[in-house]
Amino acid sequence: MNFASDNVSPFCPEILEALTKDASVNAPAYGGDALSQQLDAAFSELFDKEVAVIPVTTGTAANCISLSELVSPYGGVVCHHEAHINEDESTGVAFFTGGAKLLPMDGPAAKLEADGLDGFVSGLVDRGVHSVSPECVAITQATELGSVYKVDEVKAIGEVCRKHDMRLFMDGARFANAMAHLKCHPADVTWKAGVDAISFGATKNGAMAVDAIVLFDTSLKPRIEQARKRSGHLHSKHRYLATQLLAYIKDDVWLKNAGHANAAAQALADVLIKQGASLTHAAEGNELFVKMSPDLAGKLRDAGLMFHGWPSLGADVYRFVAAWNADIVQITKLNTTLG
Amino acid sequence: MNFASDNVSPFCPEILEALTKDASVNAPAYGGDALSQQLDAAFSELFDKEVAVIPVTTGTAANCISLSELVSPYGGVVCHHEAHINEDESTGVAFFTGGAKLLPMDGPAAKLEADGLDGFVSGLVDRGVHSVSPECVAITQATELGSVYKVDEVKAIGEVCRKHDMRLFMDGARFANAMAHLKCHPADVTWKAGVDAISFGATKNGAMAVDAIVLFDTSLKPRIEQARKRSGHLHSKHRYLATQLLAYIKDDVWLKNAGHANAAAQALADVLIKQGASLTHAAEGNELFVKMSPDLAGKLRDAGLMFHGWPSLGADVYRFVAAWNADIVQITKLNTTLG
Amino acid sequence: MNFASDNVSPFCPEILEALTKDASVNAPAYGGDALSQQLDAAFSELFDKEVAVIPVTTGTAANCISLSELVSPYGGVVCHHEAHINEDESTGVAFFTGGAKLLPMDGPAAKLEADGLDGFVSGLVDRGVHSVSPECVAITQATELGSVYKVDEVKAIGEVCRKHDMRLFMDGARFANAMAHLKCHPADVTWKAGVDAISFGATKNGAMAVDAIVLFDTSLKPRIEQARKRSGHLHSKHRYLATQLLAYIKDDVWLKNAGHANAAAQALADVLIKQGASLTHAAEGNELFVKMSPDLAGKLRDAGLMFHGWPSLGADVYRFVAAWNADIVQITKLNTTLG
Amino acid sequence: MNFASDNVSPFCPEILEALTKDASVNAPAYGGDALSQQLDAAFSELFDKEVAVIPVTTGTAANCISLSELVSPYGGVVCHHEAHINEDESTGVAFFTGGAKLLPMDGPAAKLEADGLDGFVSGLVDRGVHSVSPECVAITQATELGSVYKVDEVKAIGEVCRKHDMRLFMDGARFANAMAHLKCHPADVTWKAGVDAISFGATKNGAMAVDAIVLFDTSLKPRIEQARKRSGHLHSKHRYLATQLLAYIKDDVWLKNAGHANAAAQALADVLIKQGASLTHAAEGNELFVKMSPDLAGKLRDAGLMFHGWPSLGADVYRFVAAWNADIVQITKLNTTLG
Repeated sequence: MNFASDNVSPFCPEILEALTKDASVNAPAYGGDALSQQLDAAFSELFDKEVAVIPVTTGTAANCISLSELVSPYGGVVCHHEAHINEDESTGVAFFTGGAKLLPMDGPAAKLEADGLDGFVSGLVDRGVHSVSPECVAITQATELGSVYKVDEVKAIGEVCRKHDMRLFMDGARFANAMAHLKCHPADVTWKAGVDAISFGATKNGAMAVDAIVLFDTSLKPRIEQARKRSGHLHSKHRYLATQLLAYIKDDVWLKNAGHANAAAQALADVLIKQGASLTHAAEGNELFVKMSPDLAGKLRDAGLMFHGWPSLGADVYRFVAAWNADIVQITKLNTTLG
Repeated sequence: MNFASDNVSPFCPEILEALTKDASVNAPAYGGDALSQQLDAAFSELFDKEVAVIPVTTGTAANCISLSELVSPYGGVVCHHEAHINEDESTGVAFFTGGAKLLPMDGPAAKLEADGLDGFVSGLVDRGVHSVSPECVAITQATELGSVYKVDEVKAIGEVCRKHDMRLFMDGARFANAMAHLKCHPADVTWKAGVDAISFGATKNGAMAVDAIVLFDTSLKPRIEQARKRSGHLHSKHRYLATQLLAYIKDDVWLKNAGHANAAAQALADVLIKQGASLTHAAEGNELFVKMSPDLAGKLRDAGLMFHGWPSLGADVYRFVAAWNADIVQITKLNTTLG
Repeated sequence: MNFASDNVSPFCPEILEALTKDASVNAPAYGGDALSQQLDAAFSELFDKEVAVIPVTTGTAANCISLSELVSPYGGVVCHHEAHINEDESTGVAFFTGGAKLLPMDGPAAKLEADGLDGFVSGLVDRGVHSVSPECVAITQATELGSVYKVDEVKAIGEVCRKHDMRLFMDGARFANAMAHLKCHPADVTWKAGVDAISFGATKNGAMAVDAIVLFDTSLKPRIEQARKRSGHLHSKHRYLATQLLAYIKDDVWLKNAGHANAAAQALADVLIKQGASLTHAAEGNELFVKMSPDLAGKLRDAGLMFHGWPSLGADVYRFVAAWNADIVQITKLNTTLG
Repeated sequence: MNFASDNVSPFCPEILEALTKDASVNAPAYGGDALSQQLDAAFSELFDKEVAVIPVTTGTAANCISLSELVSPYGGVVCHHEAHINEDESTGVAFFTGGAKLLPMDGPAAKLEADGLDGFVSGLVDRGVHSVSPECVAITQATELGSVYKVDEVKAIGEVCRKHDMRLFMDGARFANAMAHLKCHPADVTWKAGVDAISFGATKNGAMAVDAIVLFDTSLKPRIEQARKRSGHLHSKHRYLATQLLAYIKDDVWLKNAGHANAAAQALADVLIKQGASLTHAAEGNELFVKMSPDLAGKLRDAGLMFHGWPSLGADVYRFVAAWNADIVQITKLNTTLG
């Protein structure tokens, strides 16, 4: 059982079926095909608003290309210290934006809090050309520590953004896991709360390789498309990105996969807690951050579980990520195995 | 029959099989998996030299990431005016290299000639900090106009590069088509001729989405891997790039596909010439540039053929590209259809 | 007599006086001083329009910082092949703009012609994300070959820019020389003709080191000021840039200096023609491009003249640039010296 | 009395004399003149080592151009949170380096400590392509809070750099003030301690506008010269940068000016302490950070003193900077004025 990350999982049957079905016919390149042409409508229905969809194949690309239009080369992007863009995307943000600076701040369980954000930003605006002023806020939903922003929390952040004339971006690499937890409408936690654009992740949750930039401000589309091409992220056989995305949202496959992953994480949490471990904070998505003894960690590894230590939260803290294909029955059986 | 481009084709059965086979198991992310670990060895065997392989999903990414280590932000990349990097990759080269300038020159059928190159470059070197000095030469094999560099031609270019201390890069988006034509060893026309790195294209010739950067100078690997990550081109489910590439070169699928495409182009050329058309220059790969009357063009479109006009070669010139899945029998039947 | 360039000249007495006068008192930094605060008004009067002035110390900085707001990272800047930004500013334009590409074209005596421009641009617009579309046109006044755009010529270019929704930038490194020749109002050949911004050069024509970005579209000011700071071009002792500029335009020093340089060039042309040389094209500013025998070139060098060969115009062509401090009496005496 | 910054001061008589002397003759441009040609030798003597000198006109340019060769686009620059490159140079570092990230850390009085640095860096190296690894350390001498690194402190930092294979850069905007305090040989605290390059500031300490990049690793010179030109920082009338620098170091003018500024700061500290204020930390250069009552602050302002609040150190903390031209007699008289 591999809990090292959700991206150790393969792609799901629905996506294999879609790719297979589309594997034998010719179609126009670069998004001119019938499947690609359906994307905007399909996601507009999903989000209950006219949106523009620009698919790419990685979360880093989705995040950085989005930010390239949400912040100037002289501006700053406020994010949590734990944010993927700050910790795991090399110098991507500066590269794509032409120099913009990340302005990391703290907050519980990798979440920004509106009040703290307001205070942080207030100290940074209007300082003239020498300093970097925040022009955009980036939040991750679900966060890198597996927590999930509630609707009201995003709304409050959206209001701080409006107050200081900043854009609001959402890194949704695990947006499906957040939605499976929140059970609200996708609109409530995005554009209705002030989000300008989201990277709508599919790769971790059952796709082979596709994360979609979804623009709630469709005026951004032309420049985003140029930024995508310029950085080598426009696929010639674009339909294979489209077909993955369409299969992913059709019949709520994305929510089914994420719900399964979240449930698997809960099942695993139950097992681990029974073994004497504790969670550093509530597990709301498909990630667990677990405090446990070296003994227990060793026993789990002996039982075939794969997972990473997470030293930034403590020497005895470990991360477990459950994917869409986690075997819940097998997880439950761990109670027996571990005794 | 769609001759608009070779990237209108789907992916080939061997690659579907490979993807399917690999669709149901977990594996380490970011290239830590067993398939990804086989890439260097497989391509080292193919090229008869120790190489480093860094797969990405587009030709633009493969070209621009490669060039980012072959030229400084202050230098120039000599290429043909028709080069894909000059005509079809937006401002990608400047973006990835931090500012390097394309220095386009002419040559017959989109090929650089060693003598012309030497003269061109000699006028540009040693001009001090105000001017852009050429640091790299980029050639396309097969070229954007369907011609193919002979081994001796690449060798001669390689010598000019050594003379002026320039790197030599090969855009191999259609390298398979060139090799199917040349029938030489891949080493002869690459590293043995002085090529430092090649973008080894698979997407156009039967893959879903993968072009590999193959480094003959393996010392470039660490920086190229950083450049790939930084630009969002490192896939988490990296194995799906690896599995495509391994299936592509196994049992010479790449040469079989390209040989078929080249043969289809020849069959189409025969048909068109019989109808009164002529080729602007010899068709050595899978692309035809055809001079014909508006009448004939209309007849072909009525018969269901799709293709583009190519005004840069003349108002009455059209491009036909045959893909790995072109139906040669159907092409031959055109003789009957067209009368 | 040094005709190698006009930047071999020192700075002029009026500017020394201004610098000296300002050398002994404290003043706010970064443009908060009284002299800097006068710049906008002084240049608004000069140009008969409300403008914003951002001084820097080199022409490359003035050009590239201006262009950073007139073209996107995905766009192109149309210019003449001979343009300083194309030939003499390294990879500056791509650096400052985040990747924008120069799209050089031809035209007589280094001038773009409106008709040719229209045709050139028409073939480049609306080609989609793969290609670079022209977003800005840059002309040099006076040009790198010493010719001067007439008012109507700039107007016609301005109309082509409006037609294709492009910005118009003027590299005015030798704007004073152009104005001394044209004798029109500075407004006529700039904003009234459609120019959005000019680099108003002073360094070559009597300043120590200052070229001013003058924005006719003042909405560009905030970003240009950020671009200046970000690139290290905001001076702490900003008043010394201001004092140079104010002294330069006060009492028409700029036109007096340029008029002298132009007259010196004419005087030199008379001498050279008498000696059997000919001009490759009319000398309208302070630069001469002279076709002459090696014999005559040798005689001139023996007589102590310094000047450069200009091989791009021919093996027997040489450039002579007269500066604001050229000694016309001594030039005239050459008739005697050379016999 | 203006203590807002040392850059409110004008330039000093020795530099006016040098500029004046050089104001009436022609000389080769772009550093080909006799004065510019003396720079390397003059600074090699000053530092007792063969160095390469590349003058620019601002500290931001000197810092960022230097860093562009000391860190890759994928790397990090460790610095103090208070560092000028982190707080006052906009997004300059990312711009010039092509994306490199600042990795700020803490330390007393704006100084990095070797032990803390070693610990900080150890946690950041070898984390793979996803994360930013430190490639360079930048320290400021004297620091932004007026403290000065001792020779042994720089040496210890140099050793940490060697240990982790990082470059060491020194922002010497106030290097003269540090040297006037340390009274050691300039070599001891720079190349002998492991510093690869320094921005040798002159502007704040009596020049009009010149800060020199001094390369102790002369192999960096060609790329640094390209980086300077590319960013618009190569002056055509380069001799005026050279003449300022030569006058600045001749007869120890730089140390005389800095010694005066430091003494003025001490005199002011004595006055303020007598008035009931206290220093937040020892004043070693020409800057004071003063904790005092609003009452005293008001009295000082009434007495004509100009200075800034420094809220990052506390609501009741203020900064006073004494320049080379501070009037020590007048400062001493404050005792009488303030009563």
